[in-house]
Amino acid sequence: MSRLVKKRAAKLGLPPGTPVHVGEQKIEQVKITVIRYDEAQVQEKQIAAIEECVLPADQVTVTWVNVDGLHQTETLEKLGERFGLHPLVVEDILNTDQRPKLEDYGDYIFVVLKSLYHDDEKSDELEIEQISLILGPNYVLSFQEREGDELDPIRNRIRSDKGQVRKMGADYLAYAAIDLIVDYYFVILERLGERMESLEEELVTAPTTETLQVIHGLKREMALLRKSVWPLREVIGSMERRESPLIRETTGIYLRDVYDHTIQIMDAIETFRDMLSGMLDIYLSSVSNRMNEVMKVLTIIATVFIPLTFIAGLYGMNFKYMPELDWRWGYPLVWLVMIAITISMGAYFRRKKWL
Amino acid sequence: MSRLVKKRAAKLGLPPGTPVHVGEQKIEQVKITVIRYDEAQVQEKQIAAIEECVLPADQVTVTWVNVDGLHQTETLEKLGERFGLHPLVVEDILNTDQRPKLEDYGDYIFVVLKSLYHDDEKSDELEIEQISLILGPNYVLSFQEREGDELDPIRNRIRSDKGQVRKMGADYLAYAAIDLIVDYYFVILERLGERMESLEEELVTAPTTETLQVIHGLKREMALLRKSVWPLREVIGSMERRESPLIRETTGIYLRDVYDHTIQIMDAIETFRDMLSGMLDIYLSSVSNRMNEVMKVLTIIATVFIPLTFIAGLYGMNFKYMPELDWRWGYPLVWLVMIAITISMGAYFRRKKWL
Amino acid sequence: MSRLVKKRAAKLGLPPGTPVHVGEQKIEQVKITVIRYDEAQVQEKQIAAIEECVLPADQVTVTWVNVDGLHQTETLEKLGERFGLHPLVVEDILNTDQRPKLEDYGDYIFVVLKSLYHDDEKSDELEIEQISLILGPNYVLSFQEREGDELDPIRNRIRSDKGQVRKMGADYLAYAAIDLIVDYYFVILERLGERMESLEEELVTAPTTETLQVIHGLKREMALLRKSVWPLREVIGSMERRESPLIRETTGIYLRDVYDHTIQIMDAIETFRDMLSGMLDIYLSSVSNRMNEVMKVLTIIATVFIPLTFIAGLYGMNFKYMPELDWRWGYPLVWLVMIAITISMGAYFRRKKWL
Amino acid sequence: MSRLVKKRAAKLGLPPGTPVHVGEQKIEQVKITVIRYDEAQVQEKQIAAIEECVLPADQVTVTWVNVDGLHQTETLEKLGERFGLHPLVVEDILNTDQRPKLEDYGDYIFVVLKSLYHDDEKSDELEIEQISLILGPNYVLSFQEREGDELDPIRNRIRSDKGQVRKMGADYLAYAAIDLIVDYYFVILERLGERMESLEEELVTAPTTETLQVIHGLKREMALLRKSVWPLREVIGSMERRESPLIRETTGIYLRDVYDHTIQIMDAIETFRDMLSGMLDIYLSSVSNRMNEVMKVLTIIATVFIPLTFIAGLYGMNFKYMPELDWRWGYPLVWLVMIAITISMGAYFRRKKWL
Amino acid sequence: MSRLVKKRAAKLGLPPGTPVHVGEQKIEQVKITVIRYDEAQVQEKQIAAIEECVLPADQVTVTWVNVDGLHQTETLEKLGERFGLHPLVVEDILNTDQRPKLEDYGDYIFVVLKSLYHDDEKSDELEIEQISLILGPNYVLSFQEREGDELDPIRNRIRSDKGQVRKMGADYLAYAAIDLIVDYYFVILERLGERMESLEEELVTAPTTETLQVIHGLKREMALLRKSVWPLREVIGSMERRESPLIRETTGIYLRDVYDHTIQIMDAIETFRDMLSGMLDIYLSSVSNRMNEVMKVLTIIATVFIPLTFIAGLYGMNFKYMPELDWRWGYPLVWLVMIAITISMGAYFRRKKWL
Repeated sequence: MSRLVKKRAAKLGLPPGTPVHVGEQKIEQVKITVIRYDEAQVQEKQIAAIEECVLPADQVTVTWVNVDGLHQTETLEKLGERFGLHPLVVEDILNTDQRPKLEDYGDYIFVVLKSLYHDDEKSDELEIEQISLILGPNYVLSFQEREGDELDPIRNRIRSDKGQVRKMGADYLAYAAIDLIVDYYFVILERLGERMESLEEELVTAPTTETLQVIHGLKREMALLRKSVWPLREVIGSMERRESPLIRETTGIYLRDVYDHTIQIMDAIETFRDMLSGMLDIYLSSVSNRMNEVMKVLTIIATVFIPLTFIAGLYGMNFKYMPELDWRWGYPLVWLVMIAITISMGAYFRRKKWL
Repeated sequence: MSRLVKKRAAKLGLPPGTPVHVGEQKIEQVKITVIRYDEAQVQEKQIAAIEECVLPADQVTVTWVNVDGLHQTETLEKLGERFGLHPLVVEDILNTDQRPKLEDYGDYIFVVLKSLYHDDEKSDELEIEQISLILGPNYVLSFQEREGDELDPIRNRIRSDKGQVRKMGADYLAYAAIDLIVDYYFVILERLGERMESLEEELVTAPTTETLQVIHGLKREMALLRKSVWPLREVIGSMERRESPLIRETTGIYLRDVYDHTIQIMDAIETFRDMLSGMLDIYLSSVSNRMNEVMKVLTIIATVFIPLTFIAGLYGMNFKYMPELDWRWGYPLVWLVMIAITISMGAYFRRKKWL
Repeated sequence: MSRLVKKRAAKLGLPPGTPVHVGEQKIEQVKITVIRYDEAQVQEKQIAAIEECVLPADQVTVTWVNVDGLHQTETLEKLGERFGLHPLVVEDILNTDQRPKLEDYGDYIFVVLKSLYHDDEKSDELEIEQISLILGPNYVLSFQEREGDELDPIRNRIRSDKGQVRKMGADYLAYAAIDLIVDYYFVILERLGERMESLEEELVTAPTTETLQVIHGLKREMALLRKSVWPLREVIGSMERRESPLIRETTGIYLRDVYDHTIQIMDAIETFRDMLSGMLDIYLSSVSNRMNEVMKVLTIIATVFIPLTFIAGLYGMNFKYMPELDWRWGYPLVWLVMIAITISMGAYFRRKKWL
Repeated sequence: MSRLVKKRAAKLGLPPGTPVHVGEQKIEQVKITVIRYDEAQVQEKQIAAIEECVLPADQVTVTWVNVDGLHQTETLEKLGERFGLHPLVVEDILNTDQRPKLEDYGDYIFVVLKSLYHDDEKSDELEIEQISLILGPNYVLSFQEREGDELDPIRNRIRSDKGQVRKMGADYLAYAAIDLIVDYYFVILERLGERMESLEEELVTAPTTETLQVIHGLKREMALLRKSVWPLREVIGSMERRESPLIRETTGIYLRDVYDHTIQIMDAIETFRDMLSGMLDIYLSSVSNRMNEVMKVLTIIATVFIPLTFIAGLYGMNFKYMPELDWRWGYPLVWLVMIAITISMGAYFRRKKWL
Repeated sequence: MSRLVKKRAAKLGLPPGTPVHVGEQKIEQVKITVIRYDEAQVQEKQIAAIEECVLPADQVTVTWVNVDGLHQTETLEKLGERFGLHPLVVEDILNTDQRPKLEDYGDYIFVVLKSLYHDDEKSDELEIEQISLILGPNYVLSFQEREGDELDPIRNRIRSDKGQVRKMGADYLAYAAIDLIVDYYFVILERLGERMESLEEELVTAPTTETLQVIHGLKREMALLRKSVWPLREVIGSMERRESPLIRETTGIYLRDVYDHTIQIMDAIETFRDMLSGMLDIYLSSVSNRMNEVMKVLTIIATVFIPLTFIAGLYGMNFKYMPELDWRWGYPLVWLVMIAITISMGAYFRRKKWL
């Protein structure tokens, strides 16, 4: 449930803009890394206090400040002041109960994203991490809940000068982060797809009561995924339309590419949801089929024996004057009658296709 | 039901603009409080008659008139005249059967909000209170059905000069009220979330007939919540777009923040509704599973005994010439046959996975 | 069914604009009333022929011609000619199978409304009456199917100069008629709400087969109501936007008020529909619960006795050599065994919570 | 099924614009009729070859060429050339698998309509005929699949100069054709309405397995009707907006009238669909009710007799020492016990409302 | 499942624009064909290396380069460089997990299409092939996954100068390819329609458990088809609006024609989906009907014999004093009573319509 509604009652009545951390603390120590690069060189260092972080000066060098861990509200307040962020932005970064959104503050763009991952220990449930980005003219600030290695591929590309990231500006760096997070969704989808495949086989071979709960569990994962991707589309869409001068035209083409990816993900989610509905139908139908089969076979057995038992009871009566009882062939005759009834009932059932 | 359709038949045929109180009277005495503040000072007093309320003069001082209790139509009529409100506005304030809405009358903006709360005595059902706001250039009028302490956090912030409320104008005060009411929705959501969590456990362990009614009850609470939040979005949205000069640009950023909150609430409601549908499915399925189990076990017992009873009946027949009856080992043999039938039926059931 | 599709096959192939009365005749005699008023005075008379009706001359005096009964097509044709109405308008007034709509013909606006009422004799079914309005610069024509007293409150207000109707123009008169018809919807909603309340109690205490039909009946009433209100929204909305110079700005504010009322009605209908769906679920579930209970109790009784009957049958066999039969305590022992079986079965059922 | 997907595989790979007849041939001989009229006179003749058809010269005379039967592709090709139609238009006229649409080619407007009718022999299934219209400045070409008399009412009006058709231009003629086709939909709706009425009675009195199939059959007819009317709305709507100079303003008012009719039809279809869903619910519920009743009565009988049979079996045991057997009043006592059991069970069932 | 989510995890973290083949390799050898034509002549050759392909020079000659097989990423990279394609375009061509889309890069338009076909060996499942088109001012590049003959009809039309393809430019060639792919959808629809027809008969005559799976299988095929056609509409729509100068006005009319075809396909899919839902209802209802019939007949038999067996048991009791046993006509009388009970029960069942 904690994935759905986070405890924010503590914030009730506080003035807006008050920085309060909403969400669980995922790492012990806040970690701040600064990477500074241009086409020619890269500098990378980990800093202990915000004061160490020098503001970027020229337009060519890109500064990327990454903060892992959101529970030290003072650190974030200081960072906010240093980069001139609106108090509401700092409040939103700290409140991990946001939905993906983009807010344009003129000097900088504030983007909230949701990164999904499977924690390896409890592997079936999706975990959510909120990643916030601030895109300024020549800097990017990124905020993660845990000491994540999600953005490592980008760091590696910067260090080894692979791809175009060193040649482009801060907007391309922000794009690269979004692109990476969207790519993780595909990994999630693949994993969910595999679980659905195995579930589908189970449905046909051996449906159990748990199958239903697994189907509903998957439905919820889909809803969670949908909830993360759907607003992301709008976010990327409004970046692509380049309503802000912070996003250059060359980056626009790349954003259109990510936008397409989100549409593909939405498509896949829709298909999965349809499949899950179909699986629910098949589950319910197969459960009721199994029950029907039980009832049918058992009832048939009962029905065949009921008339036979009646006949046996008939000749168990103690009337003085029952001529049949004294007949020499009475007993074998009763056997014959009983066999005849059984056979004709069997034939009737077979003709009606109940057997 | 009274939460759905209020008795307003009494108004049928009356000329529009006639002030009639629609809704139940929630407090005995109407209470009017006037708070007047600017950055330097605060004045606060409770007045008995509207005439005591002096109109605000300068542009800097903000006057906030709060009315608790709507059943004295004359008081509201007088207030309306004093502040130059349209008769339809007074009529709407008195009619608590409104949906959240915003009406721009040029000189002032009229906003209707719905505040939800759990009355502690009958704790499961949501109660609704209608709160109306009039936002003028340098005053705010607020109207509540009960002597509510809902807006107390704002009063405290004004008194102790916390946050920015004293530095900003009347529009910020109106925003603060709306923000507070929206924050209460989060509290409601948390509470509903907890009830759903416990319901979910109950579903798995011991579903009863009441569970169904609880699910449907929660569905209705969700519908009520939705009905209050959905139009609120539009209200805040149109305030944010600052179509009226009464709303300053600095307040716009804050309104966008509340707007985001309403979207989050709608999202959570949607998720909860999906979960409730899933719970309904699981409930129905578990009820039918339990019934199926009952039927299966009972029918199996019956079926095993029916052939045995037949055999017993067979040798209870009174035919003169029944050779088996005279056999020395006839009785033990019948026992053997019966045991053999029981075992083979058990094996058959087990193979078919019915046991 | 006649409420859904009216017989209009007779019109097939006729040239458009041919006046044909579609619908049932609800009163015997067509009745035409003319009310003429300005701020100073009121004249009211009933006329026999259209020719008696003098056209309004000055801009201040408002003329209101009301026609009860639509079956005399000639009367309406003459009226149409006198007021210069388009033949299609006359055709539409006569055809009571219209949906609410507004058509702007420049010189006048043609509005079709649906008034709903409960006929007292057959009280559960909603009846529909079509009311058409023609709003000209200084006149209003209204057409009703029956000699209705629906618009009497307005007449009384005109006669006694209550409210603003005498001070405003023809557009306000048209507004007042629409407002009244919308207010009747609230009365209908209240009545339906009461029926749903009592139905809800019935559902819990004693659901019968009729309950289902009542639920579906209510669903249809809702659909009917929805069908009448939904297009009305658009009608009032387009009047409010004052696209025609016939509607003054002062009236616009009042129209916005009625518009809000239609939204409230739509909201209530939506809520009622949700509730009816919920009631359907509860009905179906309670019917199947009752059946399950029957089956369970009966089957338990049957199952307990089946093994006992088998034992009784066993010692009813007539084998010569059955040692138990000769035992001194055989009979009491069998009783003991039977009692033991009954008790252990009861315990098993109780443990499984089937009892 | 042929009503859903027509065989057009033969067209695969052919260059676009190749005239191929898709659909079944409904009449043997293609029949071409030319009507030429203005306010003063009418000429009417049937022609054998397209060459006989003289093109209209002046602006006042309207020429109406009607073609019954579409299987002679050459005839249509020649006609197309004579009137300067685009090859794609001729291809579309021949392909009866079109949905209603309007295409504006500047010099002429191409309109595809669907006419529905009940073939009298197999009266329950709706048949579809595609009717195409070409509206030029002073001519109308119409194409029908069968030698239909659908448009006869218009011909009669032209011949006898009824209504306004002779006074207006070619656009009014096209309107009249569309209006007529829409009027036929009302006839279809009435007929379907009557079938639903009788079905509704059947549902309550004697639901059979066929009832379900009839309901689904009606659902399909509704879907078919909807598929024909829905795009028609857009067609008429875009004509009404008079985007083409070929449509005069005076005709616009008439088109708005037909547009209203299509909305009424859509409304009725929607209502019918809701009713059919309701009928499906009632059918399923009444089937399960009947089954439940059967099970209940039968099980009650069985249950009452099971304990009685046990008692009878008890005293059928052959134990040597059974004191009850020797009692003088043993037999009557057993009878008393049995009667007591029966009565108390009956009372229990009655109290539980199972009887 | 592979039809739903393709393995693209390998791409995670790679810089955007890196060419990676996503999808299965369908042919062994990449095959490149170049066709060059104008109104006067055609040249056609198969080339081994991209370098052999001379770029088109004049505006009249159209060059069509077709690539079968996408697994050699270097070939496509070289081709991309030669024609100046954006790296993202090459990446998208190689990634067969695209949805249909159109991207306008100014100098050329990039179109992704999905071609569906039934592989003959496993005939019931739809296969998907991604076909990408690049439309430049005087050239078309097409990319297919397999050595398909799908576009052969166009090649034949070019070779034999049938239709207008040789007279028109590259945009018409692109249109022809799209038109052909859309025409294949009709073939698929016909085939699915036939399967549904036979399924419908099966439903009525002999529904089996497999029927349910076939229905769900068809539902999935429909979803797949829908997923391919729905975005295609937008693609063709935006081409038709001629937002790019690469598409001439004469081609626009043809594009409108294909656009209509996609709407027809969507319509048919919608109808098929409705039919499948109806079939699901009928299947479930017929399964439960069959079960009900079984239960009813069997229960009736059981119920008739239960009272008879009781009577037989009654006179099997061994009481000393049972006067009936000594009666001369006791036994025949019991027979009479039994027959009377049977007949009256039968009459009762018949009256209740259970027989």
